[in-house]
Amino acid sequence: MAKIVECIPNFSEGRVPERVEELAVVAKSVPGVSLLDYSSDASHNRSVFTLIGDPVGIAEVAFQLCKKASEIIDMTKHSGEHPRMGATDVIPFVPIRDVSIDECIDISEQVARRLWLEVGIPSFLYEYSASSPDRRNLAEVRKGEFEGMPEKLLQDNWEPDFGMREIHPTAGITAIGARPPLIAYNVNLDTSNLDIAKIIARKIRGSSGGFQACKAIGIKLEDRNVAQVSMNLVNTEITPIYEVFDAIKHEAKCYGVDILGSELIGLASAKSLIDCAEHYLQIENFDYKRQVLENHLF
Amino acid sequence: MAKIVECIPNFSEGRVPERVEELAVVAKSVPGVSLLDYSSDASHNRSVFTLIGDPVGIAEVAFQLCKKASEIIDMTKHSGEHPRMGATDVIPFVPIRDVSIDECIDISEQVARRLWLEVGIPSFLYEYSASSPDRRNLAEVRKGEFEGMPEKLLQDNWEPDFGMREIHPTAGITAIGARPPLIAYNVNLDTSNLDIAKIIARKIRGSSGGFQACKAIGIKLEDRNVAQVSMNLVNTEITPIYEVFDAIKHEAKCYGVDILGSELIGLASAKSLIDCAEHYLQIENFDYKRQVLENHLF
Repeated sequence: MAKIVECIPNFSEGRVPERVEELAVVAKSVPGVSLLDYSSDASHNRSVFTLIGDPVGIAEVAFQLCKKASEIIDMTKHSGEHPRMGATDVIPFVPIRDVSIDECIDISEQVARRLWLEVGIPSFLYEYSASSPDRRNLAEVRKGEFEGMPEKLLQDNWEPDFGMREIHPTAGITAIGARPPLIAYNVNLDTSNLDIAKIIARKIRGSSGGFQACKAIGIKLEDRNVAQVSMNLVNTEITPIYEVFDAIKHEAKCYGVDILGSELIGLASAKSLIDCAEHYLQIENFDYKRQVLENHLF
Repeated sequence: MAKIVECIPNFSEGRVPERVEELAVVAKSVPGVSLLDYSSDASHNRSVFTLIGDPVGIAEVAFQLCKKASEIIDMTKHSGEHPRMGATDVIPFVPIRDVSIDECIDISEQVARRLWLEVGIPSFLYEYSASSPDRRNLAEVRKGEFEGMPEKLLQDNWEPDFGMREIHPTAGITAIGARPPLIAYNVNLDTSNLDIAKIIARKIRGSSGGFQACKAIGIKLEDRNVAQVSMNLVNTEITPIYEVFDAIKHEAKCYGVDILGSELIGLASAKSLIDCAEHYLQIENFDYKRQVLENHLF
């Protein structure tokens, strides 16, 4: 089987469609790489691309995209709701098939090195690529954002992993790293009361004692007047989707609130979903590898 | 994409492992064909093989298996709980990828013709291959079983589709046909009362007014002392797994009976299971093709 790596670069441009299209052209230009999806959010002023490809192609396309982003995005003029520190804000590499997390760490380092040597953009390695524990968490790395970075880089423990203690004047600095696949999953509550979503999020997320592999916040969907528990499930073998869904349903019920529905943002693995079928159908002795037809087809 | 056909031949031997192994050796001998699974049931005295392969390979392996079965199984000495009429009792061909049901009908006719010309075994075409409506249903075709076939073949409307009005003396007669994929799915009730399983089966099966694409009977699992609703779901786009599971759960509750669990026998498509995840997680606007990672990998 051919090796496949997923790459989900985030760019600090979500308002000028022509610029996003310029990035899409680059994203489609590298042999062996497929652009699966890209979407922009104007209020965040940010675009997210989803690509898959072989290790060589994915490293090449990530570099080319960063280069292009540095040419068309000027961070000194950027504003938006989402925290950010670079024209290419963050690039995660995710092992998908026949690739180890270590190979993805290698790719992240290759791209970071090249970005510094050829374009002069410094970077922090984060998540599995992090050079120290305080660099694992993207939110920590990004703290201070673009405007605060010149000062942050001068602090003892915030020298970039690649590059000098100075941001690129218009492209800032980029976080690059390897991480396992995550699933962006949200549950919508039949209430407009944001507090309930926040309380439930606190109850279920790992950082406050809930499910180990679940990150969660409560937010309000203003257009629907609906409170939502918005999550990243970072390892569905540890914390399956059905477990958080059932827990949220149970917690909401304690407030007399029903579930309106849920949302899967982007991609999920077949296994993470079929695990849910196995759970709810109470299938005994289910063997995912053997009993799912498609596992035999390729 | 390469064409893939599934073939699930049923043989009238489930007690002598050496004979089943002889069949397995043949099943593995044809290039382009994979033996996914085979299992034997001693009380039924029957074995079921699951193979996939390209159209040419699957037609060849089906023929070779029938030939071998006719050499090692003597129906005049066969007994078992399951109805049967031939050493190879039935051979369904199922379109899996880039193959139409019409191509599977062609394959069934090729194998039936060859079986008659080269081995002297007559056959009925059934399901989508049937030459008349009363031959579609395997249970109808098989009625009379091995012992009653000599007489049945003399009836006006039961001339074999291939071969003369006479069974093979030791291998009997075989049903061969094309059909869509089906899922063998059973739900175990927390009761030993077979009547409840039978009442529920009658309520949910299409033939008595229930779910259109659901065949169901009530049976007793003697070893576990458990009543079971045993089903074939012949089209999960019409009758999804979750629909029958929920209905059985509801009906059982009316008798104060809980669900112990369910069983998936053999293979199911990823989609049929992920449809269940979508249902139970109440996922809004889910797009199977786009949002399941594996759909992009091949």
